[in-house]
Amino acid sequence: MISPTQADRLRIVLVRTRNPLNIGAAARAMSNFGFRRLRVVNPFEVAFREARSAVGAVEVLAKAEEYKTVAEAVADCAQVIGTTAGRHRELKHPLRPLNQAGELVKKHLLSGPVALLFGSEKVGLSSEDLSHCHWLIHIPTQEAHLSMNLGQAVAVCLYELARGATAKRSSKVLKLATAGDAERLTGSLLHALRASGYVKPGSATSTEDKVRRLIRRLNLQPDDAEVLLGMLRQILWQLTQQEK
Amino acid sequence: MISPTQADRLRIVLVRTRNPLNIGAAARAMSNFGFRRLRVVNPFEVAFREARSAVGAVEVLAKAEEYKTVAEAVADCAQVIGTTAGRHRELKHPLRPLNQAGELVKKHLLSGPVALLFGSEKVGLSSEDLSHCHWLIHIPTQEAHLSMNLGQAVAVCLYELARGATAKRSSKVLKLATAGDAERLTGSLLHALRASGYVKPGSATSTEDKVRRLIRRLNLQPDDAEVLLGMLRQILWQLTQQEK
Repeated sequence: MISPTQADRLRIVLVRTRNPLNIGAAARAMSNFGFRRLRVVNPFEVAFREARSAVGAVEVLAKAEEYKTVAEAVADCAQVIGTTAGRHRELKHPLRPLNQAGELVKKHLLSGPVALLFGSEKVGLSSEDLSHCHWLIHIPTQEAHLSMNLGQAVAVCLYELARGATAKRSSKVLKLATAGDAERLTGSLLHALRASGYVKPGSATSTEDKVRRLIRRLNLQPDDAEVLLGMLRQILWQLTQQEK
Repeated sequence: MISPTQADRLRIVLVRTRNPLNIGAAARAMSNFGFRRLRVVNPFEVAFREARSAVGAVEVLAKAEEYKTVAEAVADCAQVIGTTAGRHRELKHPLRPLNQAGELVKKHLLSGPVALLFGSEKVGLSSEDLSHCHWLIHIPTQEAHLSMNLGQAVAVCLYELARGATAKRSSKVLKLATAGDAERLTGSLLHALRASGYVKPGSATSTEDKVRRLIRRLNLQPDDAEVLLGMLRQILWQLTQQEK
């Protein structure tokens, strides 16, 4: 079983949701399964306001937090996990079926906040959204009908987490750097890459995604992130100093 | 895993559903998880017509069968299983949590048709509906928020049936960079740290150890090691270029 402390550490992050009914449905599923922290990134504003003020809106929804970017919404999370309908994305992210992912998510929840991202109804998570993720979950659906309704996808994921299985309390999970740390590191590295001429004009955006993904794959521990950031800042200072 | 034959033997029976969106959502979840036989008992007629004619209505919905009574809807089934939010009903029915019920349902599906009944949004299954059931499933929800949205409840039940046992972690081990790669990276990073003034005189040896350990902790994949090495070399070139 998932403990209340673990449940409280999970942030459900809805990115660019269009339909207010889906925000409401996600909030309802959260209440059903004992999760409380709902975050929305750039919802269609009318949708969010409608959902919030709907009759019988659950407490989860009333307390939902709104963010402008994915980066801000996941800044306090050590693990950021995306959800996707597809199986064969050209991404380097580890992709785990939900029934195998549940235990891993719960393990991470033992040590700190975890964000679970759901994309918009039409297109799911964008490449930029995915670049914030450490790994991805897919719900095993039929090849011909891959894409789930958003509210149902949230319900199924939370059911799996609340499901309770033979949780072998084993292998201690390493404490990892937060997404905020990773993003600061990404920023400094990009800065250094630009200052050194590594980034070619015209490829700035793709480099940014590439660097962000690379940093997430490193599974950085908090201390190491800090040390690396210090190194990069010194290098950067030297690079920009000399330009003057 | 559930076989196509087993999946084809399951009848999802929606009893007196009011909201057309819920009938549509149930049908969509069925498509997602590979089930095809939808039966509706006394739906609010307008609701059913609306749901059927909705744009993008899935095939499952178009082929749904309509019945006047639960008795008729389950007539061909050897097992009839009800779903309920409550746990303490004054009923003589065996009540099983969903995570334990899945295997039993699949066992019955090996031998013949099984009906899974879902009641109306407001009141669930009536006492008369329940009298047709052999046993009941409940989805383990929070005491304070027992009642699930109908479409989400159907999705969660079908996910459990399609879920498959937790595969023994096919722990595919990630290919990691060789020690040689790691050492080249260590060398380049140290070089850059010296060129930038990060390494204090007198602490060179301890910094070298520290950097070497840090690089090893990153669990670098081969491609990432190469990319990082390329970045560092460019930064290094720029740092030393400017010294001249």
